[in-house]
Amino acid sequence: MKKDSKNRVIPFFRGQSAANTMKIADTFEFRRGGKLKDVSIAYETWGELDSSKSNVVVIFTGLSASSHVTSSSFNSAAGWWESMVGPGKSIDSDKHFIVCINTLGSCFGSTSPVSMNANTEQPYRLSFPELTVEDMAKASYTLLEKLGISDIKILVGPSLGGMQALAFSIMFNQSVKNTILISTATQATPYAIAIRSLQREVIRKDPDWNNGFYSYENPPLNGVRIARKLGMTSYRSSAEWQQRFGRKKSSSEKLTQNTFGVDNTSFEYEIESYLEHHAVKFQNVFDANCYLYLSRAMDWFDVSDHGKSTQDALAKTCIEKALIIGVTSDTLFPSYQQKEIAECLLQAGTKVDYQELDCIQGHDSFLVDIESFGKKIRNFIQSL
Amino acid sequence: MKKDSKNRVIPFFRGQSAANTMKIADTFEFRRGGKLKDVSIAYETWGELDSSKSNVVVIFTGLSASSHVTSSSFNSAAGWWESMVGPGKSIDSDKHFIVCINTLGSCFGSTSPVSMNANTEQPYRLSFPELTVEDMAKASYTLLEKLGISDIKILVGPSLGGMQALAFSIMFNQSVKNTILISTATQATPYAIAIRSLQREVIRKDPDWNNGFYSYENPPLNGVRIARKLGMTSYRSSAEWQQRFGRKKSSSEKLTQNTFGVDNTSFEYEIESYLEHHAVKFQNVFDANCYLYLSRAMDWFDVSDHGKSTQDALAKTCIEKALIIGVTSDTLFPSYQQKEIAECLLQAGTKVDYQELDCIQGHDSFLVDIESFGKKIRNFIQSL
Repeated sequence: MKKDSKNRVIPFFRGQSAANTMKIADTFEFRRGGKLKDVSIAYETWGELDSSKSNVVVIFTGLSASSHVTSSSFNSAAGWWESMVGPGKSIDSDKHFIVCINTLGSCFGSTSPVSMNANTEQPYRLSFPELTVEDMAKASYTLLEKLGISDIKILVGPSLGGMQALAFSIMFNQSVKNTILISTATQATPYAIAIRSLQREVIRKDPDWNNGFYSYENPPLNGVRIARKLGMTSYRSSAEWQQRFGRKKSSSEKLTQNTFGVDNTSFEYEIESYLEHHAVKFQNVFDANCYLYLSRAMDWFDVSDHGKSTQDALAKTCIEKALIIGVTSDTLFPSYQQKEIAECLLQAGTKVDYQELDCIQGHDSFLVDIESFGKKIRNFIQSL
Repeated sequence: MKKDSKNRVIPFFRGQSAANTMKIADTFEFRRGGKLKDVSIAYETWGELDSSKSNVVVIFTGLSASSHVTSSSFNSAAGWWESMVGPGKSIDSDKHFIVCINTLGSCFGSTSPVSMNANTEQPYRLSFPELTVEDMAKASYTLLEKLGISDIKILVGPSLGGMQALAFSIMFNQSVKNTILISTATQATPYAIAIRSLQREVIRKDPDWNNGFYSYENPPLNGVRIARKLGMTSYRSSAEWQQRFGRKKSSSEKLTQNTFGVDNTSFEYEIESYLEHHAVKFQNVFDANCYLYLSRAMDWFDVSDHGKSTQDALAKTCIEKALIIGVTSDTLFPSYQQKEIAECLLQAGTKVDYQELDCIQGHDSFLVDIESFGKKIRNFIQSL
């Protein structure tokens, strides 16, 4: 295990291992300035590339996901979209060559703020250049080039992945034939900016963050955990929680008089235990600095930077058919944002299938309501 | 200025001064156990009590408000509902004797965790007994008794104030003739519990909180400020912010490369500066321990504790006429919760005027959209 000058453990990446990692550039230049040497991207693939290389499905992920979208013979662990992707599933690896890419800047194998700077033999931390969604798209494009893929049959992106897909489809418009965009936006709402800004503030104000120079053995767990809980209040919906939890008490309730749950091991209501349970899992795998970089990139993203207007920018895409899915209970990426994408692509000449689903699980619905999403996605893919 | 054993300043209360403070009990017993000596309640009054004592309007407040609901000859500062309450206004002090009560446990003059324990000559801090909404109602009732008021013509309560008004109307059902309940609930939703639980966690995890034993000169400002911002994401609405802020940049933008706004003096987007501005004002007047107590009381409140069901509990009230107002954009106290109150009171024999307003400002609409609220309140009061 590598150690830094203060004898602190240095991880290459802290999270889940990706099946493959490829060096995509000797020098990678970032859009807002700065460059890095030896940039690598982690990815996984499923299925077989056909002889005409015309069956490629590329999946970009949300902020916190790895490239492990579904299980495989190399990694039997369930993926983050296990029921959606795989042999015979809606995104069918029997028919398609599927590539899921770990976002540049994420701690699950791609070059990121936890990667080692070869010059200093220290992790980049905050010396990592300012990261934008466009940098992610360029890194993904370069990876696909290295893999010999120039034509994407279907580019799939939920949430941040959808932002990356929009950037990609504008910047590399000859490469994307069809797209499936889920619960995403051409730019963030001020509500989404507020939530993310607060998440970053909570991490930064954790004394263990130490201006980015935390020990990897003692990272800012409180900050990351609370940021994740805050995120969850925007990922799910009030209606779903009312149905699932109501005012149920936590079974592990063992609160001491007036402790206000100080030790963080017990919470009075089930909704509190649920948040704690999921946020603790997250705090143990996700790097704080990576979180800051990815989160800020989402605030900065604005399709209209690529033209005179959002419409003008999206007119630069060459997408034949698009499936755009929104969810009525999504507060983080409200459905009017998906409708805007649908209308702009329609104007740009794309055949658009816009679906507004009544799922109750908010922004996360695509991860939960596989039945509703699966049907739409399967139908769309069969229509191509 | 009083100092504690470590020579730290001890405030009686840190916030805005109330016009009057009255000792209501030599010994006050709390519902969940524990008692305090010499409990006082802060309040202000406007207008004149008529000879038959039949023109009394009592106002209970939201979590963060003082008794200073509007300006007066004693305190010319604008109150928190300045445009709603006063001579000739919707709640008219030319016609009514108006009493606004600072909640038991609040730091604006009533006995609270920042009050001195005469035995120890230290503030109560976390030795303050567990506080419930019912304790607040009992304290308010006792104050009114001391003021010689046994009949309330109109009991007004927004948010937490509405919870207190519901408890009061059940516990002291002979005292309340009419009521105006705004954006309140018979019990919290799990979403509301999640938000408040997170706010408390942020405060508790601020090292300056020091398990409640912070110095009053160096209180947990980060925790209280972030908790307030988090609250604001639930008090307003995404639609309002989209309209007001969109993606406007902050005029004071002076971010340094990759600082992620570490110094908290600059934020990139206007929505961030707006939150910071309001939260800093709050952090400087509101006591952290008081916040924890009041916040938890809101989670604990459940009207159905007073009967076999919510309906059964509300059947114990003797309210003649009620105006119940909800707002469609309120996510913290969604309008179906006000509808539930309206339906239960109707069942109980109350004449109910239920109004669902389309204001865009979410839970805080009653503080902002004075025109819409004022009209409904004025009409209701004139109908009595």
